[in-house]
Amino acid sequence: MKRPTIADIAQRAGVSKGAVSYALNGQPGVSEATRKRIVAIAQEIGFNPNSAARALSGATAKAVGLTLCRPARILSIEPFFMGLISGFEAELAARSYALTLQVVATPENEVEVYRRWWGERRVDGVFVSDLRDDDVRIPVLQTLRLPAVVIGGPGDTGSITQVWSDDAGAVAEAVRYLVALGHRRIARVGGLPDLLHTQSRTRAFTDVCMALGLETAVTVPSDYTGEEGGRATRRLLIGAERPTAIIYDNDVMAVAGLAVAQEMGIRVPADLSIVAWDDSPLCSLVHPSLTALSRDISEYGAQAARQLLAAVDGEQVTSVEAGTAHLTPRGSTAPPRTR
Amino acid sequence: MKRPTIADIAQRAGVSKGAVSYALNGQPGVSEATRKRIVAIAQEIGFNPNSAARALSGATAKAVGLTLCRPARILSIEPFFMGLISGFEAELAARSYALTLQVVATPENEVEVYRRWWGERRVDGVFVSDLRDDDVRIPVLQTLRLPAVVIGGPGDTGSITQVWSDDAGAVAEAVRYLVALGHRRIARVGGLPDLLHTQSRTRAFTDVCMALGLETAVTVPSDYTGEEGGRATRRLLIGAERPTAIIYDNDVMAVAGLAVAQEMGIRVPADLSIVAWDDSPLCSLVHPSLTALSRDISEYGAQAARQLLAAVDGEQVTSVEAGTAHLTPRGSTAPPRTR
Repeated sequence: MKRPTIADIAQRAGVSKGAVSYALNGQPGVSEATRKRIVAIAQEIGFNPNSAARALSGATAKAVGLTLCRPARILSIEPFFMGLISGFEAELAARSYALTLQVVATPENEVEVYRRWWGERRVDGVFVSDLRDDDVRIPVLQTLRLPAVVIGGPGDTGSITQVWSDDAGAVAEAVRYLVALGHRRIARVGGLPDLLHTQSRTRAFTDVCMALGLETAVTVPSDYTGEEGGRATRRLLIGAERPTAIIYDNDVMAVAGLAVAQEMGIRVPADLSIVAWDDSPLCSLVHPSLTALSRDISEYGAQAARQLLAAVDGEQVTSVEAGTAHLTPRGSTAPPRTR
Repeated sequence: MKRPTIADIAQRAGVSKGAVSYALNGQPGVSEATRKRIVAIAQEIGFNPNSAARALSGATAKAVGLTLCRPARILSIEPFFMGLISGFEAELAARSYALTLQVVATPENEVEVYRRWWGERRVDGVFVSDLRDDDVRIPVLQTLRLPAVVIGGPGDTGSITQVWSDDAGAVAEAVRYLVALGHRRIARVGGLPDLLHTQSRTRAFTDVCMALGLETAVTVPSDYTGEEGGRATRRLLIGAERPTAIIYDNDVMAVAGLAVAQEMGIRVPADLSIVAWDDSPLCSLVHPSLTALSRDISEYGAQAARQLLAAVDGEQVTSVEAGTAHLTPRGSTAPPRTR
């Protein structure tokens, strides 16, 4: 794990270190074609000539980075990320590490931020969240040799460590609980469909519903916002085969679902049971308070921070399974009034 | 605006630069008493010897800092700070500035973080929120000559720029609206009482209630959490003189207040009107959706970021009044059923 140097660029480009220096400083002495090739290589491996003075000092950044690729409107309301950040803080503060935060629009933007942060020695490592299929960030992080910890998964992250939790086990527990209460028509309002952990929850939900002999296992995809969660709930509740219970992939959508039920005069829990994923203070804020899948988000963040700091220190770090979420029954679940 | 140097310490201590260097590096050549005095001065003006290599490079940090001094449980749920942060981001990203975040326990911890950040050149400036009476951070920031922008106020911040909004005007609008609907018993659940903007809202609330001839103007102090906001609501609703309308100092407490009314069988808005301060997606997530005092938190953050970047550039920066919050009526307010 070392930062890219002029020597690395020279080796890749098959030129001398002096030629690299000329090219990057815009001085004569190299052809335009060679200059372009050298600049492209420098960019690819995350070398930034402007940071030369800093790089020479040999100091570490004493900071780690987190990019958040979600619309600002959901970031401002979903408790998950702030819970995670407060978990990072405890571990980082003890080691005098700062957390550098950047909100980005796309995974491609995240990659650009990684290149810049690493090239300018702004961070010594990064947290990576919201893993996707064929995630564009993984190969770049490996090429850059930027220490990283993926939060979530499990997925194919090559040499990069993951801190993950058994979402499939948790969703199975929620379904089994609802079936034990007597529910036979259970639906789910899912999170962003291209995230790996959403896919793993959807598979688990379908599998356990089938294994328990339920006729249907409908997952309506959504995007974690209250707006979309409310819309998905309305669609489910006006359908011919109205579910008697709905599981939501986050707390914000579950609260919105409760409001839609109230708006339609459908009583919770008498007519409809609601289970929220990721218990948060939001779930206890509403009436009735929401039955939820609880896990210690803050400890999850702390665990990821310990792994990342070990990776920054150059230790060999292995993936870790964090605790599985468990069901916390509250006022929003009950046996269905009619079967 | 320049960072502290060894020469500054030498001048203050009345010793040579060599003596300062010896003292800070723990080398012999100065008495123990002098060494202690020099270390104390270095700490006071925010000089950090470990950052010498970095300081020599003359590079700016290209980062600004934000300390958050709130309990993690409220940070994880209150939309205000994430809204502010998303506002910072737009301006910072355009200038390739990073945001460095630290959660702290007390204002004294904030001061320590400022010293360390500035001493180690981790930031070029800081955002200061939650201004208090005789705020301990203000004199330290002035001594350090650390560029800063206070978000909130208005208060006595010496040479430090403020970006503030007219909370008194907004609270008056909310009270006048409720009185126009026919309410005569209006209560308020306030935020942390030692924050300046809470005090200015409390004064304005009392003044406008008196001016409009209402018999009482009760403010129950709280702490922005749903738990405390719910408790304060319960106390108000079981009292002899039950209010017909309650104004809350944040959205989280207003949502908790709505849940308490539902738990007690008090209908909103027929039996109780609710107004939330700081409109956020949370206010539209519940049923009925909450009438709120709306302002563009994200633009508020962007304005603060523009001021801070100007201060970092060494420009003369003056305080700015951001837009006043305006009332957005929704389903939680109506004329009182009984006068």
